[in-house]
Amino acid sequence: MSDLRYDPITARWVIIAPERKLRPHEFLVPQSHGPSPIDGCPFEPGRESMTPPEILRLPPPGGGEGWQVRVVPNKFPALRVEGEVAREGLGLHDRVSGIGAHEVIIESPRHDAVMADLEPEELALVFAAWRHRISDLRRDVRLRYVLVFKNEGREAGASLSHPHSQLIATPIIPKAVVQELSAARQHFRAKERCIFCDLIRQELRLDERVALETEHYVALEPFASAFPFETWILPRTHRHDLATASDGDLLALAVMVRELLQRLRSLLGDPPYNMVVHTAPSPHPRPGLPDYWSTIEHDFHWHIELIPRVTRFAGFEWGSGYTINPTPPEEAARFLREADPDGGLHVHP
Amino acid sequence: MSDLRYDPITARWVIIAPERKLRPHEFLVPQSHGPSPIDGCPFEPGRESMTPPEILRLPPPGGGEGWQVRVVPNKFPALRVEGEVAREGLGLHDRVSGIGAHEVIIESPRHDAVMADLEPEELALVFAAWRHRISDLRRDVRLRYVLVFKNEGREAGASLSHPHSQLIATPIIPKAVVQELSAARQHFRAKERCIFCDLIRQELRLDERVALETEHYVALEPFASAFPFETWILPRTHRHDLATASDGDLLALAVMVRELLQRLRSLLGDPPYNMVVHTAPSPHPRPGLPDYWSTIEHDFHWHIELIPRVTRFAGFEWGSGYTINPTPPEEAARFLREADPDGGLHVHP
Repeated sequence: MSDLRYDPITARWVIIAPERKLRPHEFLVPQSHGPSPIDGCPFEPGRESMTPPEILRLPPPGGGEGWQVRVVPNKFPALRVEGEVAREGLGLHDRVSGIGAHEVIIESPRHDAVMADLEPEELALVFAAWRHRISDLRRDVRLRYVLVFKNEGREAGASLSHPHSQLIATPIIPKAVVQELSAARQHFRAKERCIFCDLIRQELRLDERVALETEHYVALEPFASAFPFETWILPRTHRHDLATASDGDLLALAVMVRELLQRLRSLLGDPPYNMVVHTAPSPHPRPGLPDYWSTIEHDFHWHIELIPRVTRFAGFEWGSGYTINPTPPEEAARFLREADPDGGLHVHP
Repeated sequence: MSDLRYDPITARWVIIAPERKLRPHEFLVPQSHGPSPIDGCPFEPGRESMTPPEILRLPPPGGGEGWQVRVVPNKFPALRVEGEVAREGLGLHDRVSGIGAHEVIIESPRHDAVMADLEPEELALVFAAWRHRISDLRRDVRLRYVLVFKNEGREAGASLSHPHSQLIATPIIPKAVVQELSAARQHFRAKERCIFCDLIRQELRLDERVALETEHYVALEPFASAFPFETWILPRTHRHDLATASDGDLLALAVMVRELLQRLRSLLGDPPYNMVVHTAPSPHPRPGLPDYWSTIEHDFHWHIELIPRVTRFAGFEWGSGYTINPTPPEEAARFLREADPDGGLHVHP
């Protein structure tokens, strides 16, 4: 059984999710690199029985046999759906029972596809699965946030290379999300403007950190990018929630994300990366806690944060809470604007 | 020239330290693994001219030829000593000039030594160098904190394997340190007790998460350990500042740290790890900001945080600010208590 544990000195929550390993050396980082084999891959078509029972299945674009996207519970979940959310103090510490959901979105039936290779119509179905799962899990009154994320490549935490993303729904709004929700709310209360809309206007005007723009989306390198080529993808006009995006919105998003990933590949050669969605929280208010939902339509702006994993998180980052980024975002944006999405990696020009 | 940049949405500071790389692929994580070669290693005895001019040199324990520990400026510093601290707003954002210090502590003349292999008297000299540099850099009124840290192994961010630690002194107290300082101050104001002393008493009484204890130090697995085998090393009695530790304190610390590292090695087989020191900030108050120094003697308790890098930081961690830890600290503490420091790794028992 998992625990959510709180430390009052560092103010951090941690999910302790025991994996019942028998000996300490089993905790070592696997030394394997490169893609995981198709043999035994539980995400292959025809091996559907290797995963826990399916939650959602979407057919290929335009119909046809089989499935394009499947959503299944994670076989080794960090949090579990069964039970009540119990909260207790333990001496100096605090504990919340590890209730939640941990699901896997299998993004394609093709083992060796990567997100950058999916056709826009295929990728839009991945986003449609995200939208569906966020909406559905919001109905569970115990859960307060649904975090959708993707790890691509072993260096970014992926253990299987068959293309997939994940979601974890938690009984607490995660710290990084609370920070964004409260900063956005505070800005709106002071100025009656969305801080993300202000950011987009500022960055489009300055034109120093815009990596890519389409009619409906903009991709920015944040002024305080924590990592080289960190990129935020935002709807150009005010939209508070991915869960309310139309199919057309998702197709336009797919075109943007695909283009961005292809440019990153041409610059960095299929880098490992993480992607996270920050969108509105669940609508169930908690007595005594801020009700972000009540004003969310006005003050929040959903977006995707993408971080290629080309630098390492080390002692300074851990001890300070700061990161050191060797690539100014202005430079990263320029590289991305000038990249040839079909170009491949030009190591020897 | 480096920048400290602030993002109002994520409330994060980032050090943008341009390395003037010419092409994006140069940002890729080096694929090399294992130790860096002795050939060309700038930390070897006899190659002292390969480093910037020496800041501190400590002779071997008991005297003798050559040096045991050297401190030199980092050749590729994230922050630089020259200049004034300029603060400015830029639209939505904030920027502070990248003034600071970035030094390297060369821990031994032996290229292939690791910290776990140093004799206690040798290791105490490393800590003495830390103590000296913290005290010295505190005299610079522009700087507010000196963060000492160590990355061991490439997976933990070390690019050279010759044993070394580093320090970065910043014109802002880092977020993770402010969090600890303010939590400790708040606890003291409410209870007139040090929160770390309370923690030590609680953990010694419960005896579930104590990894190791000596007469003067205790090593704990924190209740909310963010990573497997995360360990905090604290003086058993109230001590607010590493900079005021006596030579005897440092020797006792060396005995503890060495024992702990040897046990980790016997369990995990020389894992990559990060180590950070959290101690008192610089004494120079800033108008309008909390003056942590004025009460530091009572409310803070210095300690070392050690994190073996056996799991990966991935999308969920980035998007949530939470970590998922598969090893309960109670289990890690038990493994460490039972480990044989001289045992080597028993992969096949």
